[in-house]
Amino acid sequence: MMKSKGIDYHFIGSLDDIAYVLNIRANDVQCNPVVISYLLVSENSCNLYIDKSKLSQEVADYLKENNISIKAYEVIARDISDIEAKKTLYLETKKTNVAVYSSIGRGVNVVTGLNLTSIMKCHKNEIEIKNTKNAFIKDGVALVRYLNWLETGVSTGTITEMIASEKLLEFRKQQDLFIEDSFESISAYGANASMPHYKPSHEHPVKVEPRGLYLIDSGGHYLDGTTDITRTVALGELKPEEIYHYTLVLKAHIALMEAKFLEGTNGGYLDAFTRYNLWKQRINFNHGTGHGVGHVLNVHEGPQRIGTAGNEYPMEVGMVTSDEPGIYISGSHGIRIESIMVCVKDEMTEFGQFLKFDNLTVVPIDTRPVDKSLMSEEEITWLNDYNKMCYEKLSPYLSGHDLEYLREQCKEI
Amino acid sequence: MMKSKGIDYHFIGSLDDIAYVLNIRANDVQCNPVVISYLLVSENSCNLYIDKSKLSQEVADYLKENNISIKAYEVIARDISDIEAKKTLYLETKKTNVAVYSSIGRGVNVVTGLNLTSIMKCHKNEIEIKNTKNAFIKDGVALVRYLNWLETGVSTGTITEMIASEKLLEFRKQQDLFIEDSFESISAYGANASMPHYKPSHEHPVKVEPRGLYLIDSGGHYLDGTTDITRTVALGELKPEEIYHYTLVLKAHIALMEAKFLEGTNGGYLDAFTRYNLWKQRINFNHGTGHGVGHVLNVHEGPQRIGTAGNEYPMEVGMVTSDEPGIYISGSHGIRIESIMVCVKDEMTEFGQFLKFDNLTVVPIDTRPVDKSLMSEEEITWLNDYNKMCYEKLSPYLSGHDLEYLREQCKEI
Repeated sequence: MMKSKGIDYHFIGSLDDIAYVLNIRANDVQCNPVVISYLLVSENSCNLYIDKSKLSQEVADYLKENNISIKAYEVIARDISDIEAKKTLYLETKKTNVAVYSSIGRGVNVVTGLNLTSIMKCHKNEIEIKNTKNAFIKDGVALVRYLNWLETGVSTGTITEMIASEKLLEFRKQQDLFIEDSFESISAYGANASMPHYKPSHEHPVKVEPRGLYLIDSGGHYLDGTTDITRTVALGELKPEEIYHYTLVLKAHIALMEAKFLEGTNGGYLDAFTRYNLWKQRINFNHGTGHGVGHVLNVHEGPQRIGTAGNEYPMEVGMVTSDEPGIYISGSHGIRIESIMVCVKDEMTEFGQFLKFDNLTVVPIDTRPVDKSLMSEEEITWLNDYNKMCYEKLSPYLSGHDLEYLREQCKEI
Repeated sequence: MMKSKGIDYHFIGSLDDIAYVLNIRANDVQCNPVVISYLLVSENSCNLYIDKSKLSQEVADYLKENNISIKAYEVIARDISDIEAKKTLYLETKKTNVAVYSSIGRGVNVVTGLNLTSIMKCHKNEIEIKNTKNAFIKDGVALVRYLNWLETGVSTGTITEMIASEKLLEFRKQQDLFIEDSFESISAYGANASMPHYKPSHEHPVKVEPRGLYLIDSGGHYLDGTTDITRTVALGELKPEEIYHYTLVLKAHIALMEAKFLEGTNGGYLDAFTRYNLWKQRINFNHGTGHGVGHVLNVHEGPQRIGTAGNEYPMEVGMVTSDEPGIYISGSHGIRIESIMVCVKDEMTEFGQFLKFDNLTVVPIDTRPVDKSLMSEEEITWLNDYNKMCYEKLSPYLSGHDLEYLREQCKEI
């Protein structure tokens, strides 16, 4: 890849790219299983700049076997400055710090672009996708147990947003190959959910009560995949506006999930599919519709992104991306429905190769806040099919009250 | 405008911009009422470079009154080369030829961007819009008379695509203030309509027959406005595929026409609204969805454009743009439905200022090829309301068979 592009050296400064290309994982950064390091690759060498004490003997041996040289973290600048004039150095400016950039010697031909590893890692291979599907089933089991626990316990008046959040982690920990949360959970009740990036705390405990909407946005790293999911559930009586907005968010979610699009279509274009119906109601949400998701790596990963502006990178086969529209009414309520999907080939027609999304997330979508009269036949069928699929995939792993709860949540409307 | 941007000289090489800013029209180019010329504007001078013999005394006097100096067409390069070093010269590279560009002297500070006149002229003022609405009613009267003539005559077996096209021009000529066609009409029967830019001819006469679909894409310059319209009509029995595709095109047309969008949304984003449902059926069309329309000027005008790629200019209040999705099945049939719309303010909500489109075109949309079962309630209502509006606006100007035809075409479905 480097040779065909005439690149002599490729500097890589993004930790998830280094973890990906070397196939190593660590815990230097909370929620991101990466190790603080730099990588400098040439045709004949591959240097990893890292605090050696972080490497276990096993990893050190593995790297040695693969001809990766270990160098001290600090010497990167010197090695960069040693690159001779007329050589071509490739790097991604957004992922290169000033210290490194300013050590580049005179006469070096600097070529910039996305890290080549980013372009490789965003296309998940068959094994990554197969494993990820498995991780999502385990995550679905944890979520259903959690939601059943929450809905059962909420009437006791003892559950706060933070207690709930910790309980969810417990349920995830019971699952095979679980590593850690993939980001800090957003466990938000009522008006708090109107802040898309809300963070609950023990210092300001907020009780979850048996009325209104509760939003949980969370995810886990498993050794076989990374998850990220948002569900909003009805804990009791709802205001008409909550039902109206929930239904609109669900319609927006389905619109993107069910889209077919020509090869080459980018995330800026796909974003419009989601917002069309919301905008018709003069409603908008101020965040992207979808972000790439790493494989046992950062839960936010590029280069693809579904959003209103500046998302030129095309959506391609193998990319794993979220679909998460929302509506936020300050001081009242917040709704978001997020599932993760993988881009796959659809039909090839006389008009070109079409692509579509396969849904990876396996957690029922609450039907209690749905106003069926606002849904098309097609949307109702989608919702019933989705929940039926959840029942089929999750029921073998659940029993007793959890299974009953799942059955109730997956009922046709 | 120039002063605030620190511009000393503005070179304008696009003929429609010159016609716009000087408020003159001519007939140097077929279908485009412009005059071959250059314009060089500074704070204290405005030079028009033109073949003087083209100016009538009236226009010459008008220009003189407005302090426009007339110079020979050829001296532009010399005047450009006379611009002193350190002065700022503003121009649009795409609208500047090499001869002019290469005469710029050393040390001149060249700043490039859209011609400032383009940005002014794309926002139609109230008078332009009011006059344009009037032109569209006259154009609608001509179109209805034409379609009635066509449908009545088609059974005689004597009408060719070209004869039809000429007849349409006759009907337009009967209208007040008509100048000329705004582009060469695309009068296309059956399989010929599958070529979006088809050109009928007398050399290869094609008979229009009483079956299948006929497409007419045409427009006129009137002294009060420029029109551009496409209608596809059923001349008799249709194949199921023609009905299916016609209905899909109509749905795509309505989707854009009924869109609401936040201020700042560009034509690339709006394009997705049109194609979403077509793509779901794995169908696409290989042309833009909408182009700007000049006011008694070029029928294709920027900077806004609704299309899949590279259309970054936002859709703004006062812009007049077409909405013309299509489906083309090579060797079989072609369908396009085009109306012209003006961007206006919609509601301001807590989510921002929304914009929408007002439809300017007043020609009924044929309901005979519509498969109602594929239309939503909302779409059916839109179609009936649109045709009702056409009846109300056009019926005062029609009588006899023409009025009967209009009534039939505007019937509710």
